[in-house]
Order: sequence, then structure tokens, then C-alpha cells
Amino acid sequence: MANQKQYDVAVVGVTGAVGQKILEMMEEIDFPIKQLHPLASKRSAGKNVVFKGEEVEIKEAKPEAFEGVEIALFSAGGSVSRQLAHEAVERGAVVIDNTSAFRMDENVPLVVPEVNKEDINENNGIIANPNCSTIQMVVALEPLREKFGLNRVIVSTYQSVSGSGNAAVEELKDQSRKMLDGQEPEASILPVKSEEKHYPIAFNALPQIDVFEDNHYTFEEMKMINETKKIMHQPELKVAATCVRLPFFYSHAESVYIEVDGDDVSIENLQDALRDQPGIVLEDDIANQVYPTPLSSEGKTDVFVGRIRKDLDVPNGFHFWVVSDNLLKGAAWNSVQIAQAFIQQD
Amino acid sequence: MANQKQYDVAVVGVTGAVGQKILEMMEEIDFPIKQLHPLASKRSAGKNVVFKGEEVEIKEAKPEAFEGVEIALFSAGGSVSRQLAHEAVERGAVVIDNTSAFRMDENVPLVVPEVNKEDINENNGIIANPNCSTIQMVVALEPLREKFGLNRVIVSTYQSVSGSGNAAVEELKDQSRKMLDGQEPEASILPVKSEEKHYPIAFNALPQIDVFEDNHYTFEEMKMINETKKIMHQPELKVAATCVRLPFFYSHAESVYIEVDGDDVSIENLQDALRDQPGIVLEDDIANQVYPTPLSSEGKTDVFVGRIRKDLDVPNGFHFWVVSDNLLKGAAWNSVQIAQAFIQQD
Repeated sequence: MANQKQYDVAVVGVTGAVGQKILEMMEEIDFPIKQLHPLASKRSAGKNVVFKGEEVEIKEAKPEAFEGVEIALFSAGGSVSRQLAHEAVERGAVVIDNTSAFRMDENVPLVVPEVNKEDINENNGIIANPNCSTIQMVVALEPLREKFGLNRVIVSTYQSVSGSGNAAVEELKDQSRKMLDGQEPEASILPVKSEEKHYPIAFNALPQIDVFEDNHYTFEEMKMINETKKIMHQPELKVAATCVRLPFFYSHAESVYIEVDGDDVSIENLQDALRDQPGIVLEDDIANQVYPTPLSSEGKTDVFVGRIRKDLDVPNGFHFWVVSDNLLKGAAWNSVQIAQAFIQQD
Repeated sequence: MANQKQYDVAVVGVTGAVGQKILEMMEEIDFPIKQLHPLASKRSAGKNVVFKGEEVEIKEAKPEAFEGVEIALFSAGGSVSRQLAHEAVERGAVVIDNTSAFRMDENVPLVVPEVNKEDINENNGIIANPNCSTIQMVVALEPLREKFGLNRVIVSTYQSVSGSGNAAVEELKDQSRKMLDGQEPEASILPVKSEEKHYPIAFNALPQIDVFEDNHYTFEEMKMINETKKIMHQPELKVAATCVRLPFFYSHAESVYIEVDGDDVSIENLQDALRDQPGIVLEDDIANQVYPTPLSSEGKTDVFVGRIRKDLDVPNGFHFWVVSDNLLKGAAWNSVQIAQAFIQQD
């Protein structure tokens, strides 16, 4: 590693839930950083972040801040990416963008390294990181698609509040405390901060993540539908999603129904296809009540799969349960993996 | 009402979560009770319940306790029903059983009054009340089946802890307080009290409700599958279920996918079919963020439906979201409705 090339790396949105995890992940794998450029809004500029035991000053995210930057990981919301990603690219950086700004742009590869690492080569300066709930699902789907073919996906999600950022985590804590004390909860963040109405998430379930589209699906649901087809290079794949926000802090869970191509596939075939895959941990031993949960998956980078069952009526239908930490594999870890794959090809 | 026949009514399991709600519901609709017989385990015998402002002594649930009883509502677990339901019937009572003991018995009607009230006439002394998660789903499905035909159902549930009784409600409270204080939660009730392993439910999601069957489905999932077909008299209906316990106290929610018979049905057709149906409230106005949630449905007897969408790939496919109070329409209220329908025919 002594002779390995080192990079100037910017992290945009470094004070946010995902930005913090990106620093943690880069530290953990000892990413070859020459200089770290922690960037955030004007409000946070001048404060410090700690990286590898040293304090590094946060600078304001503006075009000039990208001078000399070779890899820029964006995670500060779609509008910041739309304003600054091209500025970073113009200054010579490759952008790994963890917002929805460019994901469906046909000139931008949308990458989950376990699924379509080779798409990184098609980048024109920007590589998009998919939506959290999409990532964990396609990691589980890809080995099944490869082995058995895949023609249909119906998913219902169980998503944690950290997907809406640190303010939503605090809102769940505050509301939970209030309700346990018999008081009325106050809601101002969830389901969508910018929307008119807010509902309590504590001891509740909200069937709205992101805003509604004209077709009655939410934007989160459409992300899962469109991104899955793009990442898997299967535009004709039938995908349907229902996305629900729930009162837990970290990790998303998903109840997934799939139809494979053949009628002669067994539960054991599916288990074998998922076992020992990179990035996947099979936790499917019902005799011993082994299955993944949000709490058991928190803080881990893998995608956990359990509860694999064969549909009782449709011979090529299967059901399973997928859980992963939405801030890690769903965001920070996948972005850092993309950066790793990029420098391997550099 | 002055000349209406009055009945000797026993409530078995009167100290439990559902038993308490049965008393509330009977009081609320002024059920014609001549004498209330509150029954429970030996441990609770001698204590009192309050009914219509008066204290009534709880007696031990044993065969002789049913002497003179005309209607017996059982909600004390399957083993109590298996021991005592026939004893009650032998003594002249009609039993309305809210356990899984007799639901799939072909000589026992399984009744949701909005769907198959007429099946009450086929009873041989016992009428079964379906599982909570089944009831709310079939109430929403029946008007759609009648109008458009129905050939497929895939449901993922979001179920509250009160479905596991008062002890599970207390466990969620205790664990939530502990975790908010940074302490380790203790688990001894959920997912299934009698099972070897218990997992925290607070700020978590458990993909196990009831024990596992040989086919890898849980008993709760098989209840939804088998009971739906029986109630709707459609044994060939394709039904699949994934049941998940979540950290809220009351009401179950369900993400339901259906396929109707025709390809020319619209969202508006479904909304119209559900609007103004007895027992159903359509809460589906996405422009104003209107959809049901567990908190908004708590304490109400109706079944709430929202988030109706057309599948984007399958022309006869639709998705929607159903919420209802599991202790009311899912248990106590449906049992009391059966009792009402029974005395109307009496």
C-alpha cells in the first residue's frame, strides 16, 4: 500500500447523517486520502470534523472549494448536487452523488458494485449512488436474476427514520418520550419536511415517503421502480413498490415477492444462490428463529436475507425479507465502494 | 327496544385485551344483556369488572359456569376454547370464538358480517371470529371481489403489539423507555411468548408472528391465507402473506396487492366501489396527504382504506393500504357484530 496513489477527496454534506458515515467508512477501510476536503453549508463552515484522530476544518461548499479535488462524494440533497456537481467535474473531480439529482440521467451510471460495477466505466464525470431502499433490494435480487432469471418484483418496505436525516431521528426520540409520558406528540419533519401536513411517527406507520407523483405513487416508490430496472439493465422487469416509514432509527427492511423464470426452483436453490455472495449474509434458519431485523443489522455493511418461502399458488413465485443499514450499504458504504472501484480502475 | 329479548351473555377471558374491549363495545351499542357472566382464569376469579357502571364479579371459567348462558364470547386463547367451547354449547349457548381453535373446522362458520353474515345460519353451536389481520383485509376485498372479481392477493402486514396481548403492550413501553435512556432492552414476550428466543420490538421490526409451519410460513401467515379463502368462499383464490410485528400499540396496517378479473378497471372504479360501504371509510386523497395510519384509526370500529394505485405493469393489478384497530374490528367489535347478527336471526 506504500506506493498506492493517494487522492484529494471532498465530502459534501459532511455534517449530515450520511456524510458522517462516509468519513467513518473511509477511515475504517483506510481509503487512500491525500487530503480530505470536508464541505458543508455556510452555516457549518469553520467548524471541525475529526478524521483519523485529527481535526479538519469544514469549508463552505461552493465552486472554488473543488479546486484540486479528485473524488467528490455528494450527500447534501438534490439541489446542492444540481448546483455544484458539474462545477466539481469541470475542475477535474469525479463526482459520486448520493442524491436523486442525476440517477435517471441516461449519461450517468447508477451503480451498486455487487451488481453493475462495470457501469462505472461509462461515467462522464458523475456516478450516481442509488436510493437506499433500492440498493439493498438489488443486492439480494442480482444473484437470483443471474441464476434463475427474474420477471417480477413486488416490494413493501419498512423504512427507518434516519432515511430522512438526523432531524427525523430526533423527532422520533422526542415524540416517543412525549407519548410514553402521556403527552401529545408534535410533528414537524415527517413524513416530508417540505409538505404541508406532518404526522407523528412514534408508535405509528406512515405510508408516505417523499412527495406524491401524478400516478398516485410516491417519489420514493418510483425511485425503487425505475432505479431497479436501470441498475439491473432490465427495462422490461415488472417492479412495484409500496414505501412505508416506521418508528425505528436505523436500517430498512423489505418484504419482497419475486417471480423467477422457471417453475422448478426450490427454497434451497434460492438459499444456495444467496449464500456466500459478496455483501450478502443469509440469515434464514426458522427452526432456530433466525432472521434479520433492523436492530440486528444496524451498523453492519452487509445486506441480510431471511424468511425465504415459495409461493403456495404460483410455482415460480417466492417471498423473502431483506434488511440492511440504510446509512451504510444504503448510502455511505455504497458510495465509498464506488470510490474504491473507481480508483481500482484508475 | 322495551320488548326486545334479553340474553345471558358470558365473556370468557374478560380480563384480557380483547375481553375488555368486548365489554366496552357491548356497553356502547347497548347490547340486550339480561345477565353478564364475566369469566376468566382461576387467578382472576373473585375480582370485579365494571359494566354499565356496576361491579360484576368475575367467575372461574369452568363447565358449570355456562349454566343458563345463551351467548358465550370466547377470547382466552385456543386451549381454553378447545376445553370449554363444547361444554358451553352442550349447556345451550351459542359460542362466538375469537381464537384459532375452530376457524378452519368445516362445521364451523367463520364470519365477518360485512362479507358472509349468512354463514351464521350454518352454525352447529360455534361461530368462529377470524384472525385480526384477516378481518380488515376481507372487509376491504369483498366490495372489490363483488364488483370486479378477484383472483390474487399478496399482503405484507404491519401489525401492532396489542395483537399479542396486554403483556406485549407493556413490553414495548418498557423497552422503549430503556432504549431512549441508552439502556439494553429486555425481551421475554415477543415475537412469541412460548418460543425459545425473544427479540426486542422497540425501535425494531420482527418478521415472525406466531410459530413457524413446515412450509416456512408462520401460523399467522397461514391464518391469513386459509381464512381469507374460507370467508370469501373462494378456495381457488391465490393468497400470499408476510406478517411483521412492529413497534406501535394498536391497529394493524396492510400493504395489499390484488389482481381483479378485468383489465379495464381504474383507480376511480376501486374508490367508488369502496366509498360508502358499511364498515369502510375511504381515506384516499393524496393531494391533501390523506391516508389512514395506525394512530388515526385507533379506537375506531371501521376499516380504513387509502393509497389506491394501479400497478404500472399489470393491467388488472392494484395496490392499496388498509388500516383498522386490531382489538375492535379485528377482534372485539367483529365478535359483538356476530352476536348482533345472531340475535337478529333469533
